[in-house]
Amino acid sequence: MISLNTGICRMLGIEYPIIQAGMAGGPTTAELVAEVSGAGGLGTLGAAYLTPEKLREDISEIRKRTNKPFAVNLFAPGPEDDFSRIDEVKQALKPIYEELAIEEQNGEYRSPDHGEELFRICLELNVPVISTAFVSLAPDDMAKPKAQGVNIIAKETAVSEALEARAAGADAIVAQGSEAGGHRGSFSFDRHPMGAQVGLMALLPQVADAVDVPVIAAGGISDGRGLVAALALGAQAVQVGTRFVAARESGAHTAYKQAIFKSDEESTVVTKSFSGRPARGIKNRFIEQFDSSGTKPLPFPSQNTVTKEIRGAAAKTGNPEFMSLWAGQATRGMTQEEGAAEIVSSMMEQARACMR
Amino acid sequence: MISLNTGICRMLGIEYPIIQAGMAGGPTTAELVAEVSGAGGLGTLGAAYLTPEKLREDISEIRKRTNKPFAVNLFAPGPEDDFSRIDEVKQALKPIYEELAIEEQNGEYRSPDHGEELFRICLELNVPVISTAFVSLAPDDMAKPKAQGVNIIAKETAVSEALEARAAGADAIVAQGSEAGGHRGSFSFDRHPMGAQVGLMALLPQVADAVDVPVIAAGGISDGRGLVAALALGAQAVQVGTRFVAARESGAHTAYKQAIFKSDEESTVVTKSFSGRPARGIKNRFIEQFDSSGTKPLPFPSQNTVTKEIRGAAAKTGNPEFMSLWAGQATRGMTQEEGAAEIVSSMMEQARACMR
Repeated sequence: MISLNTGICRMLGIEYPIIQAGMAGGPTTAELVAEVSGAGGLGTLGAAYLTPEKLREDISEIRKRTNKPFAVNLFAPGPEDDFSRIDEVKQALKPIYEELAIEEQNGEYRSPDHGEELFRICLELNVPVISTAFVSLAPDDMAKPKAQGVNIIAKETAVSEALEARAAGADAIVAQGSEAGGHRGSFSFDRHPMGAQVGLMALLPQVADAVDVPVIAAGGISDGRGLVAALALGAQAVQVGTRFVAARESGAHTAYKQAIFKSDEESTVVTKSFSGRPARGIKNRFIEQFDSSGTKPLPFPSQNTVTKEIRGAAAKTGNPEFMSLWAGQATRGMTQEEGAAEIVSSMMEQARACMR
Repeated sequence: MISLNTGICRMLGIEYPIIQAGMAGGPTTAELVAEVSGAGGLGTLGAAYLTPEKLREDISEIRKRTNKPFAVNLFAPGPEDDFSRIDEVKQALKPIYEELAIEEQNGEYRSPDHGEELFRICLELNVPVISTAFVSLAPDDMAKPKAQGVNIIAKETAVSEALEARAAGADAIVAQGSEAGGHRGSFSFDRHPMGAQVGLMALLPQVADAVDVPVIAAGGISDGRGLVAALALGAQAVQVGTRFVAARESGAHTAYKQAIFKSDEESTVVTKSFSGRPARGIKNRFIEQFDSSGTKPLPFPSQNTVTKEIRGAAAKTGNPEFMSLWAGQATRGMTQEEGAAEIVSSMMEQARACMR
């Protein structure tokens, strides 16, 4: 039987099975997170690129705004920097530096890695839910939060990854379909250099059959119909990204939100050009120019660090052609900013109508 | 409200909203089609590669076995042969010819094109439903069947294609997600050389919102949960391929069925290597060898014609490494042959349980 009051709602202490995805890099303001949680869903702070100080500040701000549970999303400790092909990559970026009048950085690049400290802060501040992307946490890293009663949510894109995350102790599993915007949550890059690309309609029931913990559906879900469909396929909740990127409380650049409103299901591609890891975003000149240059991006996180000044310059002038416009494949229904709480309640209302 | 008794059931005169996909090239025997229709679904004869004589024979055989409605699936009149790069392609195939001890054909290749005659036969014999793949029929081609009361179902992979098919007069639209096995039903190859790859969870509600005729969901649906999910997303029926390929009554080679039973959601890729048009199948040595040769396949249907003798030789020895193993991304639940009628009834039972 399909029910909107699922086990994971009780597990996480939330009213509705709607989780706002933990999108790193700007969209998930404390206000957005608190609005979603306050409305009965689970807001998620995308903290991966935050400094430790900013993480503390945001958590404190979320708690000022709501006493409801929320999550913090972290990238599991990443690979080391590798800038060995930096000259080649900078050569490919040269026309873009010129167009945006960026002076090439002459010093050394270095990616900040606060991963472990951010994780410690979440435990210190008793963040109720930690979600992770990119790799399964090692069982040792799981032990401490679990002893503290923190729920750990792990993201995956294939059954094999779900089983690995479950074996490591994840309390719930996000099944991320190929429709999803932003970074692919894959961690079997040896088999799938661009991440596994399994559509959610196929992936979700297969993951639900394979693991004994709640499954959260992610990818292409933007309304109450998608919520009901996900529950029918065996999920206990949905994770929604793009519609919340375009929310009023989101910190995404106005030009980014406008690009979402203008996009459709044919607008996005999966690219490594921005970060070195595969991610789905709206095609723009940056992706076209870099991907057609024939230059292999640096591995993550180094490519992300190198392209940061370009994205920064594009943000300053509001030029969407050189921003990373992460978005999923279900954007036709998004045409203007909505309040985050309104998104939660309208999804629930549509889901109830669909089931009546 | 989700109901299993949808408008398209009344339109097509079927009991259950389950359509067996019209897979060309062997699986859709008259027995399979009749079993599905007899069980209350809509069986479909994949007739694209049949001779006119065989089409007449199969239709007559289906009618001997059931008086229920059924469909015939045709490829819309295709492009002309182009063998200008045949030497290059044969060079890439050489190691395979040697391995399978195939004597290279010295005469000219030519693809049979019975498309128009097959279409005429369907009209002459009053086939109740015609479904098409690859291109939208021209409005002129629609006029005759419509005057005869034949329902035309058109397949598409993006909203833009759905609108085009609807404008041409299609009575129902198949929304084919990226999960689907076999040929991509795209006809906007100028924009998407490998076909649009939109996951069904995202594609389906966007198509349902865009057209005013019933939408049929295809891709990654193999059980009753997928049926309910598709109805929640706005479909009026589902189209199921792979599970019926593996049915007892299917004409698919035993080695092909076994490959499906051993596959999972990571097993397939989209390739042009067999036919010149993008299609999803289980990775095997043929795909790996051809795709890694760097040789561009000939356009459809010429590549299909050239690879026919390899597929034939592989079938003779039961070697799945050189057959086209079309399959979708939802095969984990398929572990042994089932009767086609049993598939229909078990999907309905699971759907009812899911909604109770």
